[in-house]
Amino acid sequence: MIHPIILCGGSGTRLWPMSVKARPKPFLPLVGDTSLFEQACSRVADDARFADPVIVAGEAHEALITEQMCTASYRLIIEPAAKNTAPAIALAAAVLEPDAIMLVCPSDHYIADPAAFREAAAAAGALAAKDYLTAFGITADRPETGYGYIRRGEALEGGFAIAQFVEKPDFERAKSYLATGEYSWNGGIFAFRAGAYLDALAQYRPAMANAVRASVAGAKTDGAIIHPSAPEFAAIEGDSVDYAVMENTPNAAMVPADMGWSDIGSWAALQDALAQQEHGPESEKKGANVVKGRADLIDCNGVLAMSDGPRISAVGLEDVCIVVTGDEVLVTTRDGAQKVGKLPGAVNQ
Amino acid sequence: MIHPIILCGGSGTRLWPMSVKARPKPFLPLVGDTSLFEQACSRVADDARFADPVIVAGEAHEALITEQMCTASYRLIIEPAAKNTAPAIALAAAVLEPDAIMLVCPSDHYIADPAAFREAAAAAGALAAKDYLTAFGITADRPETGYGYIRRGEALEGGFAIAQFVEKPDFERAKSYLATGEYSWNGGIFAFRAGAYLDALAQYRPAMANAVRASVAGAKTDGAIIHPSAPEFAAIEGDSVDYAVMENTPNAAMVPADMGWSDIGSWAALQDALAQQEHGPESEKKGANVVKGRADLIDCNGVLAMSDGPRISAVGLEDVCIVVTGDEVLVTTRDGAQKVGKLPGAVNQ
Repeated sequence: MIHPIILCGGSGTRLWPMSVKARPKPFLPLVGDTSLFEQACSRVADDARFADPVIVAGEAHEALITEQMCTASYRLIIEPAAKNTAPAIALAAAVLEPDAIMLVCPSDHYIADPAAFREAAAAAGALAAKDYLTAFGITADRPETGYGYIRRGEALEGGFAIAQFVEKPDFERAKSYLATGEYSWNGGIFAFRAGAYLDALAQYRPAMANAVRASVAGAKTDGAIIHPSAPEFAAIEGDSVDYAVMENTPNAAMVPADMGWSDIGSWAALQDALAQQEHGPESEKKGANVVKGRADLIDCNGVLAMSDGPRISAVGLEDVCIVVTGDEVLVTTRDGAQKVGKLPGAVNQ
Repeated sequence: MIHPIILCGGSGTRLWPMSVKARPKPFLPLVGDTSLFEQACSRVADDARFADPVIVAGEAHEALITEQMCTASYRLIIEPAAKNTAPAIALAAAVLEPDAIMLVCPSDHYIADPAAFREAAAAAGALAAKDYLTAFGITADRPETGYGYIRRGEALEGGFAIAQFVEKPDFERAKSYLATGEYSWNGGIFAFRAGAYLDALAQYRPAMANAVRASVAGAKTDGAIIHPSAPEFAAIEGDSVDYAVMENTPNAAMVPADMGWSDIGSWAALQDALAQQEHGPESEKKGANVVKGRADLIDCNGVLAMSDGPRISAVGLEDVCIVVTGDEVLVTTRDGAQKVGKLPGAVNQ
């Protein structure tokens, strides 16, 4: 049995104005009719290979989780503070039995092929059972500069050792990574034996491991909801699972995963995911417009028009995203989409 | 005394969604705090050279005119139907004394320099008193393809004869017009002796002249408001003053007018007029953004952002107009602005 750990930490400021503090990216129906969080839960539901999920989220989103949860049987760990992924995962690991196999699932990603995800999860779980700290290596299909990369090393049974973690590359480097075929994207999806993760954390971030242990020891449980003790957790120096553990351990492994993954990291990325869903693969969606809500387009190519109310009318635009919600109108080029999080509207929420 | 005839016929569909049937372009405060109609009235107010104005408008806009009228003393002729400019001007001419000098002023244009306008009006009025049918020849400062042109002929006292009226040219032709210096724009501003206009109309469009005469003979007057009889007027085959009279008469004259004129014929033209007002002449406004209402712009050049409510946030755009009003969001390139009137929102009002 694999224990899904669903992380709800992503703030998604680059998807402002749809994504706001009160209802951030994971809880929005960006692709399809259900939210990314609901999809993360559904991917591991009704499959005997997966145990009931453990959700890790901030207190502000407890009501959204209760509202969107597709299964009655789950546990919810309320993070006392946002401290990045390493401590969040450690909370879940400390709540599970040491020999439980955990699958870390961010809930701010889109996965077009859930069956492929589950197959990769089973393979990663098998490696994790042998104490490998195992990452999904997501098939890179373009020279993307917005993701970290994993270079695979020697073959293992059911996967590969990881030779190297690589930070976001520039475009030339990303092209060479794609050409070699040895690199895949690091999508933040991991399988660990709970005890192995905590051991590694104790080795590389002992203060963090101690603080998490103390916080869980002092936890208050209210039905399915677990409230770790706040003071110890709040004192943690936050860090990502990549920096804190994966880049340090000699036992890092990866399983290839080709599953139509996108981090929906910007309006341009959302447009790609929606165009792919609607028009099929890359070659066919070139220049396609994507409309959600009321919109009339004349002479437009590669336009995303999304509105939850007012009508959008557009003329002559190329590669522009238009998003209308509430009292906000966002218009950005695809290239500009990376800077949406810097807009006053996104910053001063 | 010059009698200003203020025409309120422009529908301004290319300025949708701000310009709508219920409140079209002349009645919107597009440049400055007052509407184009208010500005047309103000230009000829408080100046002993001008008599009280005569407004010609459709019944639908009577309330707007009453609301926006800057002087208590005026007459309003309600056009029984929209039949283009030749019959509208004829209504006013038939209401005036035959020897009255009338100045035809469209109210959907912007004029940056009202003093220059008044000087040109006085010069045109002097020529009109000699029975010249006199057009304003607006100084062309760029190879504009959206306007008709006037080629000037021999010099007259206080102006020039008109050698030729030219339809909207292509770009190459417009450049050559600009190079010769003999061409100016036809802005639809004219001075006539009322009787001379009606005589010319009777000569070139006798049916139209008869119909107007009958319609005015059957008019009902209600205070300052004149309602010409509808059946005769409604039967008229509509035509412009240019086609019906100016291109036929041998007595066409023009006075040069350099007065910062713009027909505000599209969102791009409005942007130019606003940028000029805010940043000065062409060279200095290159790439300038124009904001009316709440808007935050990052990495934008030549962007017009106008909202009467919601906040606009824009990233990375070049030469794009964004207009937000009521339940409508328009986003168009400057080049696309000509097609705004073809949008479903503009067509199906």
